[in-house]
Amino acid sequence: MNGARISRAVSEARLWQRHVEMGAIGATARGGVNRLALTREDAAAQRKLAQWAELRGYSVSRDEIGNVYVRRAGTDAEAAPVLTGSHLDSQPTGGKYDGAYGVLAGFEVLEALDDAGIATRRPVEAVAWMNEEGSRYIPGAMGSGVLAGAFTLASALARTDSDGVTVAAALAEVERSTPLPRRSLSGLRPFAYVEAHIEQGPLLEAHGASIGVVTGIQGIRRFVVEIDGEEAHAGTTPRASRRDAMATAVALISALQAEAADPGDILRFTVGRMRVSPNSPNTIPGHVDFTIDLRHPDADLLQSFGAAIHDMAARVAARHNCTAAVQNVSDVKPVRFPDDMIALIREATEAEGAKYLSFPSGAGHDAMYLNRLCPTGMVFVPCLRGVSHNEAESATPADLAAGTRVLARAIVELANRR
Amino acid sequence: MNGARISRAVSEARLWQRHVEMGAIGATARGGVNRLALTREDAAAQRKLAQWAELRGYSVSRDEIGNVYVRRAGTDAEAAPVLTGSHLDSQPTGGKYDGAYGVLAGFEVLEALDDAGIATRRPVEAVAWMNEEGSRYIPGAMGSGVLAGAFTLASALARTDSDGVTVAAALAEVERSTPLPRRSLSGLRPFAYVEAHIEQGPLLEAHGASIGVVTGIQGIRRFVVEIDGEEAHAGTTPRASRRDAMATAVALISALQAEAADPGDILRFTVGRMRVSPNSPNTIPGHVDFTIDLRHPDADLLQSFGAAIHDMAARVAARHNCTAAVQNVSDVKPVRFPDDMIALIREATEAEGAKYLSFPSGAGHDAMYLNRLCPTGMVFVPCLRGVSHNEAESATPADLAAGTRVLARAIVELANRR
Repeated sequence: MNGARISRAVSEARLWQRHVEMGAIGATARGGVNRLALTREDAAAQRKLAQWAELRGYSVSRDEIGNVYVRRAGTDAEAAPVLTGSHLDSQPTGGKYDGAYGVLAGFEVLEALDDAGIATRRPVEAVAWMNEEGSRYIPGAMGSGVLAGAFTLASALARTDSDGVTVAAALAEVERSTPLPRRSLSGLRPFAYVEAHIEQGPLLEAHGASIGVVTGIQGIRRFVVEIDGEEAHAGTTPRASRRDAMATAVALISALQAEAADPGDILRFTVGRMRVSPNSPNTIPGHVDFTIDLRHPDADLLQSFGAAIHDMAARVAARHNCTAAVQNVSDVKPVRFPDDMIALIREATEAEGAKYLSFPSGAGHDAMYLNRLCPTGMVFVPCLRGVSHNEAESATPADLAAGTRVLARAIVELANRR
Repeated sequence: MNGARISRAVSEARLWQRHVEMGAIGATARGGVNRLALTREDAAAQRKLAQWAELRGYSVSRDEIGNVYVRRAGTDAEAAPVLTGSHLDSQPTGGKYDGAYGVLAGFEVLEALDDAGIATRRPVEAVAWMNEEGSRYIPGAMGSGVLAGAFTLASALARTDSDGVTVAAALAEVERSTPLPRRSLSGLRPFAYVEAHIEQGPLLEAHGASIGVVTGIQGIRRFVVEIDGEEAHAGTTPRASRRDAMATAVALISALQAEAADPGDILRFTVGRMRVSPNSPNTIPGHVDFTIDLRHPDADLLQSFGAAIHDMAARVAARHNCTAAVQNVSDVKPVRFPDDMIALIREATEAEGAKYLSFPSGAGHDAMYLNRLCPTGMVFVPCLRGVSHNEAESATPADLAAGTRVLARAIVELANRR
C-alpha cells in the first residue's frame, strides 16, 4: 500500500528541476560541473540542499569529516535511521548526475513521503558524503570511509590537495561559509543504506533496461608488469638473437587477454598505461612496463587470475629471453550486498513493472563502505552511452524518476521495519 | 702471388696501434668516442690521418663536401682509382671501431702495398667520408651521398645542426684548422669501392665466423600506425562494448609478428616506439600509435609486407570497433652488390682460410651510395655481442687484421684490373 502511494508521490518534474538547479553550481561551459570536494562550489551545493530542507522543516547536520545529513523524523525517536544518498562533489570535468543524482533522489524520497502523508517508524536521512571522487583529496569515498572506520578521522583530515591545503583547513572554510549544526560520527548507527546512482557503464542502455539491481561492487586488483630485455639495433639483430621487451609485452598481454575472455563478459581486464624505453623507432626496446587493472565480483577469481598473471609473465618472458617482474600494487576486495537487500530492490523494481538487469557495480561507491556498517543496496539508472566522469554525461528525467520510485519503495519498506 | 704477399704484409700490431691513437681523439670516460661530424675532434682525426699519410708520401685532399682522400699512386696515371674507406665521425656516445675501422683498414692496405713492394696499375685511395652517422647533421652518409648525386652539394651545405650551425660553416672551420689540398667532386670517377666495417650485429659471433661477405644493404621501410578507439571506464565497460585502442594495437602487432616470422630469420620487424593516450591505469586507451621498422634485402618482399600491414591494420581494427591509419613515412630501397664483387671478396676470404658468413648488411653504410657510382663490396668483421652505437663497442686485434687481409687481397686484385 505504502509502496504504491509513495511511488505516485515521486515527482519527475521536481526531481529534474532540482538537477537543473544543482547542475548550475560549478557549471562548466561544456554542460558539465566542476565541484571538487570542499571547494566554494561544493559548499554552495550543500547550502542549496540545506535551503530546500529548511522549506520542508527537515533538520540538517554535518559530521566531523564533512558528511551532510538531511533528516526526516520517524515516529520512533529512538530507532536507527534508514540512510540514502551519494555525493555532491564531482570530477574537475565531471557530469551533472554522478553523485548528485543519489543525493537528489534521496531528498525526493523525503518530499514524496511528506506529499503522500506517510509517517515512517524510523527516521529517513538523505546524505551527501564528503569527497567521494578522490579528485582533490586521495583516497576517494573519504567521508563514508571515515564513518565506516576504513580510515581514521585524523588521517583523513591531514590529507592535502596539490596546493598543500589540508582537508581540515578546507573543511573549516566550508563550515565558516556554510555553517550547519554539528553531528557526531560516533553517534550514527544506520539501520540500512540504499544508494541510487547512474550506472556509468553501458549495460542498461544496451539491454533496454531502466533499472539496475546492483548485487555488489566488484573487487579491483592493480598490477604493474615490468619487462626487461636488451636494447639492440633494429636492422642488424635477427629475431632469434633479440631480447625484445616490446615483443614480450605484446605476447604477454595477448595471452592474458585470451585468458580473460570469460563467456559471460564479467571480468574486466584493462591495460591502460604502457611505457617503452628508449621508445625510438630503430631500436629494439630494452624495457617496457605496463599496468593491468583487473576487476571481478568474485574474490577467488581475482586471486587466481592474479596468480596466472605472475605465472604467464614468467613463462612468456623466458620464451623471449627477457625477464618480467609483476607487482600487485593494490587489492580492493569485492563487496556483495546482502541477499535480502538485493531482493528488496528487485521486488520494488518488479512492483514498478520496470525492465531491470542485475549485476555488480564496476565502479566504487560510498555503498562499499556503508555495507560494513549496515545492510546496503544500490539502484542504478542508465546514462547515455555509459559515459561518465565527463562533461557529456547525460541521463533522462524519466529514468531518474524511475530509479527514484524504486528507491522510495525500498526506503519506505525499510523505514517501517522493526 | 700478390694476394699472399699483401696478406703477409698486413700488420696486426700497427693496425691496432692506429686504432688506439685514433680512439684517443674524442675519447670518452667510458671507453668510447664522441667525434661528431665536422667538430674539432673530427678535424683532429683528419689531421692525424694526414700526418700518417705524409710519413708515407701519400697525397691527401678534401673535396667540396669534406670527404678526405689519401692516395697511393698507381703506375697508370690516367686509370680510375680503387677506393676503400668508411668514416671518422661517430655517434655522440659511439665506439672506437664503427667507421674508423674502415678508414684505418684502408690505410693499412696502402702501407702493406708499400711494405710488400707492390706497384698497382690503378691508384688506391683510402677515404674518410663526411658525416656518415647523421647524428649532428641529417641525413647520414652525407659525403658519399653528395658524391653519388643522392643529394645536391648545395642542399647538404645548407643543413644545420641543433645550434643552427650550417654544414658550410662547420666545414669552413675544419678547412681553416686543418687545411688540405682541394679536390673536385666532379673529377672523381672511382673504378671500384670496397668498405670494411664492424658487423654491428651478432651473426658472425654467433656462428664463430671471422669474416662477413656482405651481399648488399637491406631496404628499410618505416611506418607509423595510429589506432583510434574510445576512452572508457576500465571498471564499468564490458569487453563487448569496448573500443580499446591498446587491445587493437596488441592484436595487430601479434598478427604482424606472426606474419614476419620467416624461417630464414631474414626479415627484421621492430616496434620500437609506442605512445598511449590517456595512458592512465583505469581508463581504456582511446588512442595508441606505434612505429614499425621493416627491413629486408628484397624490395618486392618489403612492398608486399607493407601492403599486408595496411590490410591487417584495417581488418584487426574493424574487429575491435576501432579505426587504424597506416602511414609509410620512409622507404629506402635495398642495395644488392654486384655478384662479381661478392665473389671477389668470398674468394679473398677463402684464400685466407677464414670462416665466413654471407649476408646483407642490416645497417646503412657509405657503400650504399658508392654502389651507384661503381662496383662495390663490403667486408664485415665481428664486434662483441653485436653491440654498436655504444661506448662499449669492442672488436679484437685479430679480427680487425683478418678483415684487413681480405680487404687487401680484394683491393690489390681490383687495382690491377684493366
